[in-house]
Amino acid sequence: MRALISVYNKDGIYQFAKALEELGYEIVSTGGTAKFLEEQGIKVKKVEELTQFPEVLSGRVKTLHPVVHAGILYRHWVEKDKEEIDRLGIKPIDVVVVNLYPFEEKLKDDLTEEELMEFVDIGGPTLLRASAKNFYRVVVVCDPKDYEWVAQKLKDGSLSLKDRKYLAYKAFSLTSYYDAVISRSLSSLFEMDTLPEKFALPFLLGATLRYGENPHQKGWLLQNPLEELGITKSKVVQGKEMSFNNYLDADSSIRLVSEFEKPACVIVKHGNPCGVAVGKNLTDAFEKALNTDRESAFGGIVAFNDRVDKALAEKLTEIFLEVVIAPEFTEDALSLLSKKKNLRVIQFFGYSYSFDIKKVSGGYLLQEEDNQDYQEIKVVSERHPTPEELKDLLFAWKVSKYAKSNSMVIAKDGRTLGIGSGNVSRVDSLRCAIARAQRYGFDLKGSVLSSEAFLPFRDSVDLAHKAGISAIIQPGGSIRDSEVIRAANQHGIAMVFTGIRHFRH
Amino acid sequence: MRALISVYNKDGIYQFAKALEELGYEIVSTGGTAKFLEEQGIKVKKVEELTQFPEVLSGRVKTLHPVVHAGILYRHWVEKDKEEIDRLGIKPIDVVVVNLYPFEEKLKDDLTEEELMEFVDIGGPTLLRASAKNFYRVVVVCDPKDYEWVAQKLKDGSLSLKDRKYLAYKAFSLTSYYDAVISRSLSSLFEMDTLPEKFALPFLLGATLRYGENPHQKGWLLQNPLEELGITKSKVVQGKEMSFNNYLDADSSIRLVSEFEKPACVIVKHGNPCGVAVGKNLTDAFEKALNTDRESAFGGIVAFNDRVDKALAEKLTEIFLEVVIAPEFTEDALSLLSKKKNLRVIQFFGYSYSFDIKKVSGGYLLQEEDNQDYQEIKVVSERHPTPEELKDLLFAWKVSKYAKSNSMVIAKDGRTLGIGSGNVSRVDSLRCAIARAQRYGFDLKGSVLSSEAFLPFRDSVDLAHKAGISAIIQPGGSIRDSEVIRAANQHGIAMVFTGIRHFRH
Repeated sequence: MRALISVYNKDGIYQFAKALEELGYEIVSTGGTAKFLEEQGIKVKKVEELTQFPEVLSGRVKTLHPVVHAGILYRHWVEKDKEEIDRLGIKPIDVVVVNLYPFEEKLKDDLTEEELMEFVDIGGPTLLRASAKNFYRVVVVCDPKDYEWVAQKLKDGSLSLKDRKYLAYKAFSLTSYYDAVISRSLSSLFEMDTLPEKFALPFLLGATLRYGENPHQKGWLLQNPLEELGITKSKVVQGKEMSFNNYLDADSSIRLVSEFEKPACVIVKHGNPCGVAVGKNLTDAFEKALNTDRESAFGGIVAFNDRVDKALAEKLTEIFLEVVIAPEFTEDALSLLSKKKNLRVIQFFGYSYSFDIKKVSGGYLLQEEDNQDYQEIKVVSERHPTPEELKDLLFAWKVSKYAKSNSMVIAKDGRTLGIGSGNVSRVDSLRCAIARAQRYGFDLKGSVLSSEAFLPFRDSVDLAHKAGISAIIQPGGSIRDSEVIRAANQHGIAMVFTGIRHFRH
Repeated sequence: MRALISVYNKDGIYQFAKALEELGYEIVSTGGTAKFLEEQGIKVKKVEELTQFPEVLSGRVKTLHPVVHAGILYRHWVEKDKEEIDRLGIKPIDVVVVNLYPFEEKLKDDLTEEELMEFVDIGGPTLLRASAKNFYRVVVVCDPKDYEWVAQKLKDGSLSLKDRKYLAYKAFSLTSYYDAVISRSLSSLFEMDTLPEKFALPFLLGATLRYGENPHQKGWLLQNPLEELGITKSKVVQGKEMSFNNYLDADSSIRLVSEFEKPACVIVKHGNPCGVAVGKNLTDAFEKALNTDRESAFGGIVAFNDRVDKALAEKLTEIFLEVVIAPEFTEDALSLLSKKKNLRVIQFFGYSYSFDIKKVSGGYLLQEEDNQDYQEIKVVSERHPTPEELKDLLFAWKVSKYAKSNSMVIAKDGRTLGIGSGNVSRVDSLRCAIARAQRYGFDLKGSVLSSEAFLPFRDSVDLAHKAGISAIIQPGGSIRDSEVIRAANQHGIAMVFTGIRHFRH
C-alpha cells in the first residue's frame, strides 16, 4: 500500500502520515513535504526515486510523471490495466494527500504579476483530479480537516465507497474553486473587458443558515473570496443567528446608510427602507427615521453610520427590532443591548462593489452593481429649488436608489415622511407614500418627492401638488417629459433631472 | 518551435495544424489527434516518442510526463531553467492546443457512473493549466473559435503578451468551468447533502445584454449548464432583444402561469403580477387579467399557459406590451404579432427548479428554490368557505407566491381584483390592493383575500371585512392567531391556514 503526500499547508500532516505509516502504507512525498516528514522521523520515499527523474524548474515539475499518475489512475478491476502496470513495474498509489499553493492568500500580498503566477499550482490539482477520478480505488484527501476521520476509518477498515465519493466530490469542488479564483483574479489583473463563454464563480461556505427565505427552503451564506468587505464579512457581536432575510435586509441597510454623511439612520423591512433620516446626532436620526412609519419599523433592521452610544442603545431597547447594525458601539451601549438576548447586534466595516447576480430559470442574470450616480443635476422647471429643497431632494434621491421599483420617496428636513415601493404603477407608489405620510399626521407642505425612474405621465406631478409637495427629483427621459415639466410649472413645482435611473427589483 | 496538439473536438484542427506546420512548428500530438492529423498529411511526432513512455491505461495517462510539462513550464528568462532543460535534452513547447473530453455532453447520455467518469479529462486540463501559467512564453488555445486569429497573428508576428494573457485567462476560466460542472454533477449523482467549504458554480455566457437593470450597468445572460429548461432556454421568436428586466419579469410570469390549469394568463410588471386570471379561453383570461389594472399592465409582460391563436393575437396588438410569452403560437397569430416589430414574442418550454442565489455585499445568499406548497388546507374559522370561495382562495394563494412580500391578493371568480405587493407593512399592502380594486370599480363583496405570510394582527381582517371580502387564506403561525381568528369569526369570514409561507423578496 502506498500513500502520496504533497502539501503546502503542513498542519496535521505529521499525525496523518504517522497513522498511514503505522497502517503499513509506504509514504511517497515531494520536496518540502518529504523534508518535513523525514525531520519528524517518518520514513519517506522521494518521488524522484519513483520517477527516476529530477525535480526541475524550481519545483514547477515534480509529480507530473506517468509512474505517479498510472499508479493513481490504475483500475484494479480492469485486467489490461493490471498487466500494463505490472509490466512497467508501477506500484499502485492508494491514498493521495494534497493541498495547494496558496494563490488566494497571495493575492492579498504585494506581489508582482510574475511572483503571483508562481503560486498557481499545477502538480497539486492534477494529483487531486486524477485521484478523484479514480475514487473507486483511491482515497483523496484535500483538506486537513479530514485527516482524523479518514485515518480512523482506514484503521478500522470502515472507509466506504460512499466516503471515497465524498472525498472525490470535495476534491473536484476545490479544484473548481481554485481555478475560479485564478481566472476571476486574472480577469481583473489583466483588465479583461469581456466574459469568456465558459467560466465559474468561486464560493466559500460562510454558514449553513437555519433556512432560506422560507422555512421549507434550505439556505446558506456564501463568502466571495474576491471581495474584502461586506455584510457577509461583518461581525456578529451578539444575538440570535442571522437569518437569510436578515442578511438581505442588512445588506440594503448598510449600503443605504453609507451613502449619507454622519450621523444617519436607516430602517429596513422586506428589503425596503421604511424610514431614513439624518439628524443632529444618531439618536435624533433614529427617532426621525422611526417616526416615518412606526408600524412598519416593528421587527425591522436598523443601521447607523456612526458609533452607537448608551443613550441611543436605550432608545433601541424600547421597541422590537430584529437587527441593529453600526460601524461601532460603545462598551456601555453593548452592555445595554446585551439585555435583549435575541437582538442581533452587528458591527460592519463597509462594503465594496462587485457583480450582482440574480437567478432566473435555466440560468442567471449577471450585472455590474449599481455603483454610479448622476454627473450633474439639471433644473428643468421655471422655478429653481430653494437651497433647503435641493438638500432634501438629494437626500430623498439616495433613498430612492434603495427602495424597490417603482418607488416614490417623500422627504423634508433630512427625513423621509412617506415611502412607496414595490408597486407595479408609479403613481400608485406615490399614492401609498402620501397615504402613509398622512396616516402619521405629517404635513407635506413644502416637502419634496424623489422618483428613481422617470415620471411617465403628469399624473404624479398633479397628485404631488395636491398633497403639498413643492419639488421633485427624477431621471427624466420620458417621451412625455415636456408634459411633465409643464405640469410642474403650472403648479410652481421645482423639478430637477438627474439623467440617471436606479431601478432596483 | 514546437506545438502540442491534443483535442477531442477535431473541428478546424487540420487547418490550424497545417498553419502551424507551415510556420515551421514541429507538431507533437497524442493518440486520436495524431492519427487524425497524419491521415490528413500533417507530419506528427507522437508524444510517446518524446517521453519514451507508452500511452497506458486506455489513454488515461498520455501527456503527464516531465518531458512534456518541463517543455511547457520552462521559463526562458530564468538561466537555471535553461540549463536544466538543456541538460535533460528537453525541447520547449511554444504552442499548446487542447480541448477536453466532453463530460458535460455525456451527462445527457444514458451512461453508468463508471462510464461517465471516463469522460473526466485529466491530461487535458493539466496541459491547459500548465500552459496558461506560463503565458509569458506559451500560447494556449482551448477553443476552436480562436484558431483562425491565433494562426493569423502567429503568421504576421503580431501575437502579443496581451493576447497570450487573454488566452490564459480563457483557459483557466474553462478549467474552472469544467471542474465546476463535474463537482456539481457529482453532488447530485452521489446524493451529497452538504456543500463543501470551497466550491464553484459553472456559467455559460448566453448573451451580452444591452445593459443591466439600468443603462449604466453592464449586463449578461448566463446559462446554467446543469439546468435543462427555463426562461434562458426559451426561444425568441421575434422582436427587440430581451432586456435584463424583461428576463426577470418573464421568469416570474412563466413560473406563475405554469401553476394554473389551462387556460390562464399572467401580466407582470417590475417582477410583480399586476393581473392574473383563468377563463373560458385564453382571450377571456387575458381580458380579465388586463382589467385587474389596465394602468399598470401598460408596457407589461404577458404570459399564457396554452397556445395563442389569432383572435387573442388581435387583442394583444391593441395595447402596448413589452413581451408576450406562451408555449405555442398558431401561424396566423405569429403573423399578426409580427406587425408589431418591437414586440418580443417568446416561446417557452417550461422550467425546472434549481438553486436560487442572491447577491449581498461580500458574498451571496444561496437557497433551494421555493418549490413546495401546503400539505393540506385547514379551516380555522367557524364558517367554512363555500366551494366557490375555496376555489378562489386556492387561485389567489398561487398568485401570492409570486407577488413580492408583503403582498395581499384579492380575487373572485378566477381573477385578481386587486394586488398589493412590495410593501413594508402587510395591512398597507391590503390598503393598496383595495384602493386599486375600487379605483377600477370592482365590487369586492364576496371576494377572497390571500396573504403569502401570516397576518400579524387583526387589522387586515377588519379592513378586509369592511371592503366586502368574505374569505381569507394565509399560512397562520402568528402568536396572535387566536385574535386574528376571532376577528374572522366576528365578521363571518371563512379563514383557512396553509401552514406554509411564501416570502419572496
